[in-house]
Amino acid sequence: MEKQSPIRPTDEEARKLARRLIDKARFGALAVIDPDTGAPMVSRVAAVTDFAGTPLTLVSDLSHHTKALRADPRCSLLVGEPGSKGDPLTHPRLTIQARASFVEREGKDYADLRERYLELVPKAGLYIDFLDFSLVHLLPTGAYLNGGFGKAFVLTPDDLAPAQDAGA
Amino acid sequence: MEKQSPIRPTDEEARKLARRLIDKARFGALAVIDPDTGAPMVSRVAAVTDFAGTPLTLVSDLSHHTKALRADPRCSLLVGEPGSKGDPLTHPRLTIQARASFVEREGKDYADLRERYLELVPKAGLYIDFLDFSLVHLLPTGAYLNGGFGKAFVLTPDDLAPAQDAGA
Repeated sequence: MEKQSPIRPTDEEARKLARRLIDKARFGALAVIDPDTGAPMVSRVAAVTDFAGTPLTLVSDLSHHTKALRADPRCSLLVGEPGSKGDPLTHPRLTIQARASFVEREGKDYADLRERYLELVPKAGLYIDFLDFSLVHLLPTGAYLNGGFGKAFVLTPDDLAPAQDAGA
Repeated sequence: MEKQSPIRPTDEEARKLARRLIDKARFGALAVIDPDTGAPMVSRVAAVTDFAGTPLTLVSDLSHHTKALRADPRCSLLVGEPGSKGDPLTHPRLTIQARASFVEREGKDYADLRERYLELVPKAGLYIDFLDFSLVHLLPTGAYLNGGFGKAFVLTPDDLAPAQDAGA
């Protein structure tokens, strides 16, 4: 069953593709552990980036994934949506392994992050200030890049870091 | 933090919407438990239905999710892709909680399931017969339907069953 590994050595092209998939995302599929059962659970969440390129989402305490992340911050985010055209199974996508870190509303970065989020998801202005909503960083601990059939890469957090000229 | 529940009583409209999301899907996001770390992991998989309407996927032993499903069959499948138009966060989607059941290649149903799969995903003819590929049923144990902002439903496996006239 352990045949040849489909994993290729990480190169600059793979890093750039991963970064592009993160930067272009406006939503993704978030996997968490259901605290009631210990089983995995996946749902759609908003997914953008902060000024430093770190994945950032906005979640409600009324949702299952938020309760799950408060109980166990380990999660995984899939970005790279195929849209309506082409073969969804050869469309590049990135599985990010991450830890959720809730942004304190009273913290010094909150106002900047709120502004950044609203710049990318203007409609969230309708609910971002509701007290059950939280901005949450998804801090990558690793990633798998699937660049299409047979083109797979294992990436580190450093591989996912934005290029220096992208600003912080 | 436990405010009013956003969950509505399940009605026929919710059941039909859930069924439509399952039937229309050709791919989805599959969450599994990473056997190396115990953390959740989400990746894109093909996702169709068998003749009875049960979710069915085709996976390779070379992929992480297959190794994970062999170690722990608990998984979750998100279907209901927003495509390129509209607001992805108000697009209806369904989180299915499921158990993976690998279809035996020597079993009596394999040929029919293989034919069904190829009918829905013709391109898979290029690789479905490779020995590292397996058809896998994702047997629902429950589901969450998010029909858009504030329209959430908790569904049972019975709620997900196709209407009688859909054939089996």
